[in-house]
Amino acid sequence: MSSSSSEREEGLAFLPKFDAAGLVTCVTTDAATGDVLMVAHMNDEALRKTIATGDAWYFSRSRNALWRKGESSGQTQRVVEMRTDCDQDAVWLRIEQQGAACHTGRRSCFYRKVERSADEPRLAFVDADRLFDPATVYRK
Amino acid sequence: MSSSSSEREEGLAFLPKFDAAGLVTCVTTDAATGDVLMVAHMNDEALRKTIATGDAWYFSRSRNALWRKGESSGQTQRVVEMRTDCDQDAVWLRIEQQGAACHTGRRSCFYRKVERSADEPRLAFVDADRLFDPATVYRK
Repeated sequence: MSSSSSEREEGLAFLPKFDAAGLVTCVTTDAATGDVLMVAHMNDEALRKTIATGDAWYFSRSRNALWRKGESSGQTQRVVEMRTDCDQDAVWLRIEQQGAACHTGRRSCFYRKVERSADEPRLAFVDADRLFDPATVYRK
Repeated sequence: MSSSSSEREEGLAFLPKFDAAGLVTCVTTDAATGDVLMVAHMNDEALRKTIATGDAWYFSRSRNALWRKGESSGQTQRVVEMRTDCDQDAVWLRIEQQGAACHTGRRSCFYRKVERSADEPRLAFVDADRLFDPATVYRK
């Protein structure tokens, strides 16, 4: 193990390992239930703003823009705890979710399970209720 | 919303959206505690093998190889449930972990929390006990 990977894995310095696009992966879970709500990305600025403000900020790859969760939808996230993983290329946010995390209006983005079948795997809905109507919330 | 994104978000077909490297992100949590154990990647073959066998298979970007979790360390993962997210570029595996998920010997890769400080953010260890000695387990 090189000294830099040892420092990254065993040290107390926060040394995010950004990918070629300048991003780390963020897994966001509901601090109350443990459910995974979403998987998103953060750049350096999103990390800094999240730590400084206690609100979840992300970087949207599709819009190429920094984004405070809930700024359009009102479905904000307050951070309870942030962790980083062994090689510091991912963070885990435990949050209090206001309303729904998913842009489809559902509490979690993970509203379908993958089921084994005789042919191709199939999906089945779980926790599929919408807490808001996306057509209303995102209308400008 | 295009018909293909509607199908991907609201349909029952499993249509993983692989990135340029042919991968989706996988978040693996302990089915008993809800803790995030690791974040890894899967290619098409890893997804298929995971679904077919009920053991967790991943694709290692650093080793450029398919990998059954625990094949070196014995720390295997049995799948309780697999879910996919709205746009199907990530999966969430709820598993039963044999021993430790992290190559450092810890139960979870997320054994440090990020703390706000006056200067730069700092890390603090949580759940830092090692369940195995990596020097022994990975010695060939």
